[in-house]
Amino acid sequence: MVNIRLDISYDGTKYLGWQRLGDSELTIQNKIEKVLERLVEHEVEIIGSGRTDAGVHARMQVANVHLDTDKNCKTIKEYLNKYLPEDISVTSVIEVDERFHARFDVVDKTYLYRLWMNENKPIFERKYVTEIAEKLNVNKMIVAAKLLEGTHDFKAFSSKSTKKSTIRTINKITIEEKENEIHIYVNANGFLYNMVRNIVGTLLEVGQNKREVSTINEIINKKDRKLAGERAPAKGVTLYNVNY
Amino acid sequence: MVNIRLDISYDGTKYLGWQRLGDSELTIQNKIEKVLERLVEHEVEIIGSGRTDAGVHARMQVANVHLDTDKNCKTIKEYLNKYLPEDISVTSVIEVDERFHARFDVVDKTYLYRLWMNENKPIFERKYVTEIAEKLNVNKMIVAAKLLEGTHDFKAFSSKSTKKSTIRTINKITIEEKENEIHIYVNANGFLYNMVRNIVGTLLEVGQNKREVSTINEIINKKDRKLAGERAPAKGVTLYNVNY
Repeated sequence: MVNIRLDISYDGTKYLGWQRLGDSELTIQNKIEKVLERLVEHEVEIIGSGRTDAGVHARMQVANVHLDTDKNCKTIKEYLNKYLPEDISVTSVIEVDERFHARFDVVDKTYLYRLWMNENKPIFERKYVTEIAEKLNVNKMIVAAKLLEGTHDFKAFSSKSTKKSTIRTINKITIEEKENEIHIYVNANGFLYNMVRNIVGTLLEVGQNKREVSTINEIINKKDRKLAGERAPAKGVTLYNVNY
Repeated sequence: MVNIRLDISYDGTKYLGWQRLGDSELTIQNKIEKVLERLVEHEVEIIGSGRTDAGVHARMQVANVHLDTDKNCKTIKEYLNKYLPEDISVTSVIEVDERFHARFDVVDKTYLYRLWMNENKPIFERKYVTEIAEKLNVNKMIVAAKLLEGTHDFKAFSSKSTKKSTIRTINKITIEEKENEIHIYVNANGFLYNMVRNIVGTLLEVGQNKREVSTINEIINKKDRKLAGERAPAKGVTLYNVNY
């Protein structure tokens, strides 16, 4: 058996998300597994760096998979790209140490959230951005984002209750103004369920002057999901980078 | 009656092109006319700067339309964007002189052709680029493009025979190398049927070393469509700009 690392890019628009859901053909994991199984002629299970929600995109998702094959990486990559649909691309296939685990070995991940800020509708970008009608106070959002950085209990920013630890470290939130867009990059050692979307939704309320910057500390301290902002739409989210 | 100029952007992927085709709802012209007719409650005919083929996109298409209405431009724009599908956007609505004609008054137009040059498949750009497998000799393409500039009979670059004049002036062809793409901008005072796609197809053959630069003059002089290159796919074409 060889352990293979796959770097994957996808347009999540028409999928139910990364994670396999029974036999549904509408998950990215299922699509890739089915093609691999045809190539290696045995059942496979790919391990992603983490799930992405329905409609969320990936510029770089990473997975590993144990294969019983003598096919080389170049052949595997070509076969995958030949048979995967046009909205999923495998950008790299390399053999890795047998102990490499795409989920457990993550050092940090970066998500990008794209906000469309032009008064005209996005056309070519419409599936990858969330439209915002009003002008945002970006400087206020940057100040609020700073308060989220560091090691905190982010329970209030998770859409699912869990008994596991909800402590994570956000290394950096970068907010950039582009020509027609605002880009929010969130880099952390791990993300809770819907955490990026809940953080962006909260920062949006700050930018819209519906919420004071000081409420950020209160949300973190009280650990109450109801205090945080509304969850931002999935289509604005792109898994941007995974570091090992 | 007022004469209204519309600036329009669209993703042409799912349309049969700009031009109305009977009652088909799959043309951009039909979509816009139907929404306008609901607003002004009379039949309308919009005049585009020119047709775009099935699958061709527009960053900026321009049209004019005579309306019998007291609605102002802001209201017309909002109404159009509210009821048009998400792949058509009206970016500007202004009242113009009653003599303004979106086709006859064009001074020049620019088309952009996007070639995808990365060994990985395009994901987010896939509907707007044409994938090229081999590395192109861009310098040779630039030399060939120079020979196309100027006033020539471009009959060999038209996919349709016509008794009308096939003389046009290409003011400039600009070829830019981007990170993963090559962009070809063609600015001319007018374009024959499929002219951009036939020019790009010919330049591609030059870049692939399948054709010598010197054949360009021969194609122009002999006016024979069979001598020019194969027509490049529609999805790589974007109507980029129209000048009046």
